[in-house]
Amino acid sequence: LPKKKARLFNKINTKIDLDSPKVATMDKLAAGDKKVYCRCWQSGTFPLCDGTHTAHNKETGDNVGPLIVSVEKAEE
Amino acid sequence: LPKKKARLFNKINTKIDLDSPKVATMDKLAAGDKKVYCRCWQSGTFPLCDGTHTAHNKETGDNVGPLIVSVEKAEE
Repeated sequence: LPKKKARLFNKINTKIDLDSPKVATMDKLAAGDKKVYCRCWQSGTFPLCDGTHTAHNKETGDNVGPLIVSVEKAEE
Repeated sequence: LPKKKARLFNKINTKIDLDSPKVATMDKLAAGDKKVYCRCWQSGTFPLCDGTHTAHNKETGDNVGPLIVSVEKAEE
């Protein structure tokens, strides 16, 4: 059998910047930074995570979670 | 009227690490790095973006896009 190609046929963003043709976010970090970014598209603090994925996962059976990016501290 | 509370009632992840209770990703960047991260949950290179959101947006009318994180170069 051919490998199944997973593809949603529903929108996943029903909240964030709906008038934008594409919500791409650019962020700059500095040495020592750590940020937690939303990937459920429902955070009240988008593009940052506010934990809303927990309710989304509970309601839908989904398993989405955030992206956590850290930058090493500058050498001293 | 009360402010509408946008909430999906569908899974948004149908592909990535489905046996995990929650797909949280941790990544560490260094000075001068730039990475493009998937937020459509359909990338073949997850957690990085491979552009699959473009097909998803076209098929569904969605407007999702990646997160691009860069780290300033170290001072010289």
